Amino acid sequence: MTASHQSSPDEQVRADTLVLLGLAAEFEFEAFVRLANDAAAAPSIAERQVIARSAGRALERQEHLIARIAELGGDAATMMAPFDGVILDFEQRTTAATWSERLLKAFIGYAVADDFLRLLAQGADERTGELVTGLLGDDAYTELVVSQLAQVVADDVSASRLALWGRRLVGDALAVIQGVIVRQPAIARLLAAQSGEAGEDRVQRVFASLTAEHTRRMERLGLTA
Amino acid sequence: MTASHQSSPDEQVRADTLVLLGLAAEFEFEAFVRLANDAAAAPSIAERQVIARSAGRALERQEHLIARIAELGGDAATMMAPFDGVILDFEQRTTAATWSERLLKAFIGYAVADDFLRLLAQGADERTGELVTGLLGDDAYTELVVSQLAQVVADDVSASRLALWGRRLVGDALAVIQGVIVRQPAIARLLAAQSGEAGEDRVQRVFASLTAEHTRRMERLGLTA
Repeated sequence: MTASHQSSPDEQVRADTLVLLGLAAEFEFEAFVRLANDAAAAPSIAERQVIARSAGRALERQEHLIARIAELGGDAATMMAPFDGVILDFEQRTTAATWSERLLKAFIGYAVADDFLRLLAQGADERTGELVTGLLGDDAYTELVVSQLAQVVADDVSASRLALWGRRLVGDALAVIQGVIVRQPAIARLLAAQSGEAGEDRVQRVFASLTAEHTRRMERLGLTA
Repeated sequence: MTASHQSSPDEQVRADTLVLLGLAAEFEFEAFVRLANDAAAAPSIAERQVIARSAGRALERQEHLIARIAELGGDAATMMAPFDGVILDFEQRTTAATWSERLLKAFIGYAVADDFLRLLAQGADERTGELVTGLLGDDAYTELVVSQLAQVVADDVSASRLALWGRRLVGDALAVIQGVIVRQPAIARLLAAQSGEAGEDRVQRVFASLTAEHTRRMERLGLTA
């Protein structure tokens, strides 16, 4: 079911959905670039290959999102432009000192972004919502991160340093998301669409939900959130 | 026709072919990373998308080459390792000052590398030779570079600067290739395989051939080689 171009509420959903697709497409593009560089920096060719394939999948996801923008009558470049540098913002807030920190940073950043996109997808038209939700996640990448960090986490001192790093990262990720919500009324509307709550309450609930997902993820890695 | 693992001459071809595949796979991986970064640096989202897709195709080519390494009983990581940094070497010799210079650098670098791989493919087993030759080339990327540089080349001063830059680049590319030939006896054998010429004569002919191709390419761009 695509939104009708005629009636006003549907037109609003279509316009907001295009903003979501622009954010998601820009996010996947920047993830692609970051992952390509992570691949180049990987300590072994085996890890490099796993991460390079994740980069390739991010690019494929971007293509699907761009195709959906076109289906809805939008222009991909126009919709992506407002979000240019969205991951760069996250990247520049903190600098990873080790490969483990870099791996955790990318993993947490993409996971929080995916969770956020899933929440936004609930406010989009049904077909776009299903497309976005279906695209997200990367099991091979998650397995790599979990297995690589398991070795580091086995050491108590490294584990507590990484746990601290994880707390800083989630703070940075949430700050980037807050910036996106504040600057883009369409994003705030998409978040409010399902609940009918007032904007601020909804944003609080979104942050609580993203933080809870983060805690579960850190536990899976054997780290204290 | 794959090389038999039994007879000695075929075993040599198989071993040398694996070295070629390692070089080609490493080259495609590094091209993928460089192109991803070029995409991120592109002046418009439209150009960015074209270059990002070229990066995606480089990764796909690498997957085909890796699959062929496995078919021949080789290990991809082992075969790629000796060529780690092959493009980085080219990158670090000269620094592009403008987007046009960066575009020309990548274009010339990949084109010379493709030409070199085509020559090497003649010494490989028939099936690998066809695979490598069939994979090379990227029309969409070439079109982008030709159309983007056409605007710059229209200006005489810019054109003569770019032509000078092109001459430096081809010198750098040939120096990198010379290094690969010197360090890897298998590469020298693959070059000699078809002609039966002495190694040095063959290398001279290879350089003459690569330079001739470069001249044709520069002319296509409207630049003096």
